[in-house]
Amino acid sequence: MAGLVVRNVARADRNVVDRFAEFGVATVHEAQGRTGALASYISPVFPGGHVAGSAVTVSVPPADNWMIHVAVEQCREGDVLVVAPTAPSDAGYFGELLATALQTRGVRGLVIDAGCRDVAELRRMGFPVWSKCVSPFGTVKETLGDVNVGVVCAGQHVEPGDVVVADDDGVVVVPRLNAPRLLEACRAREEKETTSRRRYATGELSLDVQDMRGRLERAGLRYVDADGS
Amino acid sequence: MAGLVVRNVARADRNVVDRFAEFGVATVHEAQGRTGALASYISPVFPGGHVAGSAVTVSVPPADNWMIHVAVEQCREGDVLVVAPTAPSDAGYFGELLATALQTRGVRGLVIDAGCRDVAELRRMGFPVWSKCVSPFGTVKETLGDVNVGVVCAGQHVEPGDVVVADDDGVVVVPRLNAPRLLEACRAREEKETTSRRRYATGELSLDVQDMRGRLERAGLRYVDADGS
Amino acid sequence: MAGLVVRNVARADRNVVDRFAEFGVATVHEAQGRTGALASYISPVFPGGHVAGSAVTVSVPPADNWMIHVAVEQCREGDVLVVAPTAPSDAGYFGELLATALQTRGVRGLVIDAGCRDVAELRRMGFPVWSKCVSPFGTVKETLGDVNVGVVCAGQHVEPGDVVVADDDGVVVVPRLNAPRLLEACRAREEKETTSRRRYATGELSLDVQDMRGRLERAGLRYVDADGS
Amino acid sequence: MAGLVVRNVARADRNVVDRFAEFGVATVHEAQGRTGALASYISPVFPGGHVAGSAVTVSVPPADNWMIHVAVEQCREGDVLVVAPTAPSDAGYFGELLATALQTRGVRGLVIDAGCRDVAELRRMGFPVWSKCVSPFGTVKETLGDVNVGVVCAGQHVEPGDVVVADDDGVVVVPRLNAPRLLEACRAREEKETTSRRRYATGELSLDVQDMRGRLERAGLRYVDADGS
Amino acid sequence: MAGLVVRNVARADRNVVDRFAEFGVATVHEAQGRTGALASYISPVFPGGHVAGSAVTVSVPPADNWMIHVAVEQCREGDVLVVAPTAPSDAGYFGELLATALQTRGVRGLVIDAGCRDVAELRRMGFPVWSKCVSPFGTVKETLGDVNVGVVCAGQHVEPGDVVVADDDGVVVVPRLNAPRLLEACRAREEKETTSRRRYATGELSLDVQDMRGRLERAGLRYVDADGS
Amino acid sequence: MAGLVVRNVARADRNVVDRFAEFGVATVHEAQGRTGALASYISPVFPGGHVAGSAVTVSVPPADNWMIHVAVEQCREGDVLVVAPTAPSDAGYFGELLATALQTRGVRGLVIDAGCRDVAELRRMGFPVWSKCVSPFGTVKETLGDVNVGVVCAGQHVEPGDVVVADDDGVVVVPRLNAPRLLEACRAREEKETTSRRRYATGELSLDVQDMRGRLERAGLRYVDADGS
Repeated sequence: MAGLVVRNVARADRNVVDRFAEFGVATVHEAQGRTGALASYISPVFPGGHVAGSAVTVSVPPADNWMIHVAVEQCREGDVLVVAPTAPSDAGYFGELLATALQTRGVRGLVIDAGCRDVAELRRMGFPVWSKCVSPFGTVKETLGDVNVGVVCAGQHVEPGDVVVADDDGVVVVPRLNAPRLLEACRAREEKETTSRRRYATGELSLDVQDMRGRLERAGLRYVDADGS
Repeated sequence: MAGLVVRNVARADRNVVDRFAEFGVATVHEAQGRTGALASYISPVFPGGHVAGSAVTVSVPPADNWMIHVAVEQCREGDVLVVAPTAPSDAGYFGELLATALQTRGVRGLVIDAGCRDVAELRRMGFPVWSKCVSPFGTVKETLGDVNVGVVCAGQHVEPGDVVVADDDGVVVVPRLNAPRLLEACRAREEKETTSRRRYATGELSLDVQDMRGRLERAGLRYVDADGS
Repeated sequence: MAGLVVRNVARADRNVVDRFAEFGVATVHEAQGRTGALASYISPVFPGGHVAGSAVTVSVPPADNWMIHVAVEQCREGDVLVVAPTAPSDAGYFGELLATALQTRGVRGLVIDAGCRDVAELRRMGFPVWSKCVSPFGTVKETLGDVNVGVVCAGQHVEPGDVVVADDDGVVVVPRLNAPRLLEACRAREEKETTSRRRYATGELSLDVQDMRGRLERAGLRYVDADGS
Repeated sequence: MAGLVVRNVARADRNVVDRFAEFGVATVHEAQGRTGALASYISPVFPGGHVAGSAVTVSVPPADNWMIHVAVEQCREGDVLVVAPTAPSDAGYFGELLATALQTRGVRGLVIDAGCRDVAELRRMGFPVWSKCVSPFGTVKETLGDVNVGVVCAGQHVEPGDVVVADDDGVVVVPRLNAPRLLEACRAREEKETTSRRRYATGELSLDVQDMRGRLERAGLRYVDADGS
Repeated sequence: MAGLVVRNVARADRNVVDRFAEFGVATVHEAQGRTGALASYISPVFPGGHVAGSAVTVSVPPADNWMIHVAVEQCREGDVLVVAPTAPSDAGYFGELLATALQTRGVRGLVIDAGCRDVAELRRMGFPVWSKCVSPFGTVKETLGDVNVGVVCAGQHVEPGDVVVADDDGVVVVPRLNAPRLLEACRAREEKETTSRRRYATGELSLDVQDMRGRLERAGLRYVDADGS
Repeated sequence: MAGLVVRNVARADRNVVDRFAEFGVATVHEAQGRTGALASYISPVFPGGHVAGSAVTVSVPPADNWMIHVAVEQCREGDVLVVAPTAPSDAGYFGELLATALQTRGVRGLVIDAGCRDVAELRRMGFPVWSKCVSPFGTVKETLGDVNVGVVCAGQHVEPGDVVVADDDGVVVVPRLNAPRLLEACRAREEKETTSRRRYATGELSLDVQDMRGRLERAGLRYVDADGS
């Protein structure tokens, strides 16, 4: 029943999408009520990438990358490709050639719950990839999957057109319709953190800055001295 | 029954602690009779850090970092914070704000048997962290733990005030009272290794430098040629 | 029954071996019909290494590196040491001293299905290692193993004298007698990829470059528009 | 933003739901085009259970089972409780007391992407549980989650009211609206398998029963004799 | 520095130890303030065992069971042997012969953070083992460890003479001096659970039995109907 | 290049093969100098099976079971099917229908470094399977592999015709030509163990039965009393 390609999915407004790249993944995750983060085993294949884009989703069979080739055609400038196998796989689905094709179309990065390869070339090209592993194992092109349907990628449900933000901490997904409102929450959180950072840097304690002492005491926290005094 | 903060724990002499940073983790581990190393899944979130410090220990509930905030106040210059969850967790307990607070107090690094986040900022700040994983998942502040009690961190028992040494190979713990004597053993081992290194660099074999041939022969080692001769 | 050292094993022609370093591991794996790759958990301890060499194989007991010392003597310029424990181990079998000995003999790198240590020094020396993990845990020297017998390393059978190619993607093994013929296949594959890359960079799609559309349609691929039109 | 309980969600027709228990999980997964199966690390805590029911979903914080208590009230006869933590946890969220409460209400089983405990009692009670692990670690009751919202459980998206089928092979989820049609597909598949089984039992080969020889030959399969003849 | 055997360690009173077998591991863990449980990867090699005993601890090198033989002599009736490798190992340290020796001495079971083997015979003998895995891999007898020193076993610190309780849920450790007082706490918890169980069985909800509704409401829990009403 | 089926491979003498079923996997592994055991993650899907047979080997692509169908035809009475994917897979390659086909031909069991399903039926049929996991995920039939070539299965090299022994401890492989000689070694080991068992059952210690005390003392073992005396 697989084999569906959905064209022209709705994306969030490009101005909104682009501004998410000003925020770290941890900030977006917190601002969203601690939701949307992909599993911690997803990590960048080289450090320093930080992108925000609209999800083009791909559901692929284990060890078969045929549908990624199909998905390239559905990608536009500002997109991030999100690939999820239907069963766990550590095969190397993606390498330099596909990266060249995506980069040419203005795609900003790849998130894949499986393996990628050609990582030295990807670093040279500056095409950022977040993956489960690096693996030289090649894939076949035999079985269909789907493009731009809802997928579960590394424990997170992703719909096509959702906003994907990725940096050295990992990846977070923002539902498309929540994106504008969430931008505000990110900004608010960042401002609050800037204030906290300044105060901590002068030696103030979070116990005081965030006024935790009373609640800790009520919860039963007790202090003793090591010498028993 | 959790909720205990022990203040003013004894630390090893600062002169002793500081000199441990001259030795690699592997050297300290060997000099200590192959004991004290944390599990190999603990690794630096960025390469190049090398610190020695006195352990301030924190026992935390899974996915709850409240007690880390409490622990900051107990830290002094020259300390290393050691955080152990009571059940496995890959949440991101620690980020840039807590690092700012610790760095301001002269804390040298963090060792955590769980996740950390804001790793790009940590690298920029030069605040070294050894963790189980990098994870954007945030934590709550709801349940008490303990500060400066004995903990098990990544398979190793750590008492507050123990000396913690960490580098790109991982982390090793030295019981506080053994620290002065162990420094000597580290120095002796390093000297021996310097000699070995020099001899190996000229082409001598460890089989000869360490005089292994006799014992190997007695154990039954036998040589044959590939062509059967 | 362990305790065998086979001397003077046949290696592939050095000219052949050396030219494999022009190809990435993924290319060699593909050219070899998608065989020969070690498991994806084997990764470089620092990025940027790329070597080809003749395998000197070592079968070692868990957490015992005695036989690596024995193996050093059997290594020649152009070799790569391949170490496989008889049961899983994450101990740190290998460090800077053994690396010094191997580098002095012209050995090009180490592949080990276990742990290594002294990784900061290895990076400084430029001696590349592909391993399962980094671990400060030391090993003993008590039990014999074998040198230059067939081993299984990270899921792959390796015979002494096989050609080992390693880069940032991992490690691939080429049976010695296949090596000359495989060089040609690698070259052919690379040429084809160069052509593809150039076409993708101009915006052509792999769907067209590799003529996939007909086969996809016959497999049942269907396109719909997001608005249902 | 968590803290939502949705009451009176739609369920599939009870007659339809009940008949799914006649089919194995593997059959349902195949009939559904190889979709819907939870990850293979989900397994029964004791063998022999086989249930079908309507999903009541619970999104829980790591190591916090407060919302399971909330969810009990939303359960009806014929339901299966599906619990998914927002970050990985191996805590023991569920034991004999909650099982008593659920069994009393006619709930047929529990599926949880985390740990459960009291497994000897669960076996005695005959209350089947499919979980990630067995764990004595207790949980807290401090932080809200959600009941009857869409969740990702062990890699699979589950909506409240979906049909959940579980047996010794694992767990599969059927979207509520597909359930009636899928029952037919399961029945058709089972009939076909009955025929195949009978033919295999008489010594016929699947190569012939499923007529694979021609396609294998076209794919390039070749036979040789071990003695080279 | 290893190689120490401590004889005649203090055990808890046998009457106290024996009565712990009336309580499940989860109950003991809860009564102890949610502490003392070994990691969830420790599981019984066959179901149905339930023991309490005094810990005789063994620190062993990876894949070397020599010290278990040494430890047998230190075991008395009512003990449980607790074995912890100094580095991770999945070797099969323990089988039927050692079980025969221990059973003859009245030892009640084995807890090992590594592998065991001969599991069919262990089941037949009724000698319960809690282990990390089952593994046919044999061990050597070459390197010393320690008997009856503090060890870390599956994430938990264990001192010789501590009380160990194990059942199908896993293993929990009770510090020797806390044992008498903890017995009371276990009994109290069990009584409370008996009451709860009875009430749940009549259809009462834990929301009411444990009076959670007020706190849930204050935390922000909100109910909506699926049809939006 | 895959797609090879080798027919009529040599098997060990049936009398020899059959007698291996008298020995446990651990015994065979020890008698063979602690070699030949498959990784400990391979376990029986139901307990109590114990078989010995001749290996028919199958190399399969990830998540593709086409070649198992091809392999059935190459199986004879007394064989054990050994299936190894070319890259890691947890798909359910094997179920009741294939088991029916194999059982009809007198095949004694399956060893697979991947998943199997229909485990309730397999238990009912009494067809024993040793696998990496149980998984409902189905496979495709699209890509060729090989039958009766050398494979690496769960870390162990297996040639067609090798003797495979499997029981509740796992699986061990005996090279075909070594089989007759190894039978003697197994018998000798079993006799020695029978003697030891008898002596241990009377309270003798392995320290004395195996005469370890002298060697332990020379290695530096020292005894102290807990009270320091």
